[in-house]
Amino acid sequence: MADKEKRAITVKKEEDMSEWYTQVIINSEFVDYSAVSGCVVFRPSAYFCWNAVKEATDAMFMKAGIKNAYFPLLIPERFFEKEKEHIAGFSPEVAWVTETGESKLSERLAIRPTSETIMYDSYSRWIRSWRDLPLRLNQWNSVIRWEFKHPTPLLRSREFLWNEGHTVFATEEEALAERDQILGIYEEVTREYLALPGILGKKTENEKFAGGEASYSIEHLLPNGYVIQGPDFHNDGQNFAKAFDIKFINKNNETEYAYQNTFAISTRELGAMVMMHGDNRGLVIPPRIAMVQVVIVPIYKENNKEQVLAYSKKIYDALKDNARVHLDNRDDYSAGWKFNEWELKGVPIRIEVGGREMESESVVLVTRHDMKKSSFGFSGISETVNDELNRMQKELYAKAIVSIKEKIKKVDNYEELKKAISGGNVAQAQWCGETPCELKIKEETGAKATNMPFDAQKDVKGNCVYCDKQSKHVVNFAKSY
Amino acid sequence: MADKEKRAITVKKEEDMSEWYTQVIINSEFVDYSAVSGCVVFRPSAYFCWNAVKEATDAMFMKAGIKNAYFPLLIPERFFEKEKEHIAGFSPEVAWVTETGESKLSERLAIRPTSETIMYDSYSRWIRSWRDLPLRLNQWNSVIRWEFKHPTPLLRSREFLWNEGHTVFATEEEALAERDQILGIYEEVTREYLALPGILGKKTENEKFAGGEASYSIEHLLPNGYVIQGPDFHNDGQNFAKAFDIKFINKNNETEYAYQNTFAISTRELGAMVMMHGDNRGLVIPPRIAMVQVVIVPIYKENNKEQVLAYSKKIYDALKDNARVHLDNRDDYSAGWKFNEWELKGVPIRIEVGGREMESESVVLVTRHDMKKSSFGFSGISETVNDELNRMQKELYAKAIVSIKEKIKKVDNYEELKKAISGGNVAQAQWCGETPCELKIKEETGAKATNMPFDAQKDVKGNCVYCDKQSKHVVNFAKSY
Repeated sequence: MADKEKRAITVKKEEDMSEWYTQVIINSEFVDYSAVSGCVVFRPSAYFCWNAVKEATDAMFMKAGIKNAYFPLLIPERFFEKEKEHIAGFSPEVAWVTETGESKLSERLAIRPTSETIMYDSYSRWIRSWRDLPLRLNQWNSVIRWEFKHPTPLLRSREFLWNEGHTVFATEEEALAERDQILGIYEEVTREYLALPGILGKKTENEKFAGGEASYSIEHLLPNGYVIQGPDFHNDGQNFAKAFDIKFINKNNETEYAYQNTFAISTRELGAMVMMHGDNRGLVIPPRIAMVQVVIVPIYKENNKEQVLAYSKKIYDALKDNARVHLDNRDDYSAGWKFNEWELKGVPIRIEVGGREMESESVVLVTRHDMKKSSFGFSGISETVNDELNRMQKELYAKAIVSIKEKIKKVDNYEELKKAISGGNVAQAQWCGETPCELKIKEETGAKATNMPFDAQKDVKGNCVYCDKQSKHVVNFAKSY
Repeated sequence: MADKEKRAITVKKEEDMSEWYTQVIINSEFVDYSAVSGCVVFRPSAYFCWNAVKEATDAMFMKAGIKNAYFPLLIPERFFEKEKEHIAGFSPEVAWVTETGESKLSERLAIRPTSETIMYDSYSRWIRSWRDLPLRLNQWNSVIRWEFKHPTPLLRSREFLWNEGHTVFATEEEALAERDQILGIYEEVTREYLALPGILGKKTENEKFAGGEASYSIEHLLPNGYVIQGPDFHNDGQNFAKAFDIKFINKNNETEYAYQNTFAISTRELGAMVMMHGDNRGLVIPPRIAMVQVVIVPIYKENNKEQVLAYSKKIYDALKDNARVHLDNRDDYSAGWKFNEWELKGVPIRIEVGGREMESESVVLVTRHDMKKSSFGFSGISETVNDELNRMQKELYAKAIVSIKEKIKKVDNYEELKKAISGGNVAQAQWCGETPCELKIKEETGAKATNMPFDAQKDVKGNCVYCDKQSKHVVNFAKSY
């Protein structure tokens, strides 16, 4: 009982989202704090979700012809110095190894904050001719970025898990063509697995990747009007190729620098998923990535215990080959306590089985996202569960779309922009393309340029909301995590 | 052509195994050196093999009820100091983070050489009662051990990939029972996927894990008489539980320390696989873990090029749903060059298709491990390939068994032991169980006690080969990587 009280969520999502978020992810045993400030433990449920996202993404990468590899965790300091913008962007956050055993190292080694520099050193040795291209490698690993801002588990952690794709092409055209393929994969994964809508667009110069030519992102808009940046794709042009001497002999026997891209999806997605779908009972995990999809809770008295447990086991057996199902037959917790526990953990379906269900060969089934309670017959239970899981997966996405539908406000002037932001919305504004205007808006409203949505660029017209010069882009301004 | 010559293997396996090994793994593009001494790049073929081993092992872990999690890469120095033997064993090899960005850290952070200390800090908070046990978690990650011995790619690397399982039980009995389950999983994976025979046994006191009670291992004996330690399992008793205060309230309402185990399989297995199966043409990769299982090489002249390529594509299409198949239709390499290339890379099956095959609707199929060349009809090609892959997988294991069959010599005295070792064998000897004898033997012969094979302990009798005191164990002594 003490345990139960300890784990209750004491604030409402709509009242204090950030306190709610922390309580939900910690109390549900999704993640935990660790002894290293800013680094969290991914407990089995969170790791399962991440692994499901990883496997789905990886299968699409493989189909697209991308191969996995693994490069060293540690990077010599001299490599970082080769690309100026890159080192300027990352060096404030690098964790440095300076000693091993009892010895001082002669050169500091960085723990990878991203692997461009160590990978491209290999690439420069591997790539000789057009025959070696394209080279499309990916790795799934963890990175360390020792940020000093306030850390938030999953959303802003000093260590996180991700993929980093690093590809090399002979021509700019081929490199640019990869963008839609990769963003398409990420969009599908975030939609179909995490049930997260995304806004696809180009980053501003100020927000682009350190060392790249142009960055693109999928931004997740939340019901409170905040935006979380999701997966991204960077077109690096020949910048790194020049810094790392990645040259090849083309078909005309001339030496050229190659064209490169990089792209990533990270465990931030899990934070976005929690914020989007969770409610005042706790987590709500989309069925396709849930470690436990169905929990069976028997409800019995001393006089029918054996029979109810036997019937529960029969249901478990009927489901176990087609769903990730758990039978909670713990004797020392009440059914009500168990309901709360599994709701907190976000398990998609709860099946309640009591004496009445046993006698009528039926089950009571509760879906977590809408708390809808229905009775179903035992026969066909596996199909029923399958249908309900699919329904929930679809409805989570549809519900997310509805929750953010009116949140993007097209604004015609700066007053409207400020009003939209302070009202908890995204302001979609005309912009001259100049960084000073972008920074002033950020300074004055707290909203940053999240991205320039692809589908809004057809509406470029009139003047910049800030400086009144000719507009060049339509940009979303929003508060962000 | 320069490329081709560069990549040839210039020494024979039977003449200089260590130079052969290096040439094979580097020239076949299996792994590559990196700019960080002692750390290698896992290129796609090696990473694929490792991932296949990982997935097979992981599926068996899940079935056994073990769950995956992820704990931070960095560990505060004070945690290491909690278990004395543990820190003594690992601290000489730890890579320390002392600076982040421009700041000095107030406490050094270790890059995990193994995760007991950071995981058990969490465990001590998570475990309260017998209801929380058993707790069986695993993680797949990389570790750094900055050894100063001569590094050998895969076999002795400063960074390697592995699983680390860390389990907690309420009773010693349950903890001990886990040993056979885990060693059984590892034995199955090494046999069925890597095609590696293993010797299961207990480690000596001197060779056991730093901080554990007893260690067990699977040792891989190679045709040259050297032994490579494979997966291991450590029973830690209550040592770490006491150091990290992992206590629980048992069913009688008493507080007790828990019992723990740890276990691991690592990328060393890939080194053992290369050494066991490779030959003077290059790698030989077991089909179940090969990234490319079948390569189709068309052989054509200008006048039948189009038709031969079309027929090759037809074969590719017939195979692609049931095997990992690659059609090598590069125009600017000769068929002979391609044969060498794919042999070097260890691809299990080569299918040669020329004008004759096209006309007779057949293929020439060459299996890599025995270089057997046969002709098969196009109809039923998918089943043929499947059968041949299965045959190769089985024969690799059988061949490995034969190659080491006579290598374990039971020795009755120290002279026989020395003779066995110098003759490139494993010496299986009676031993008093005292560390000084073990160390003297190592010093005088270069052979270490690899393990005490389970199935040899029934033969304990007579006296220690070194000191002539009563024998307590049968031990394998061997040179090792």
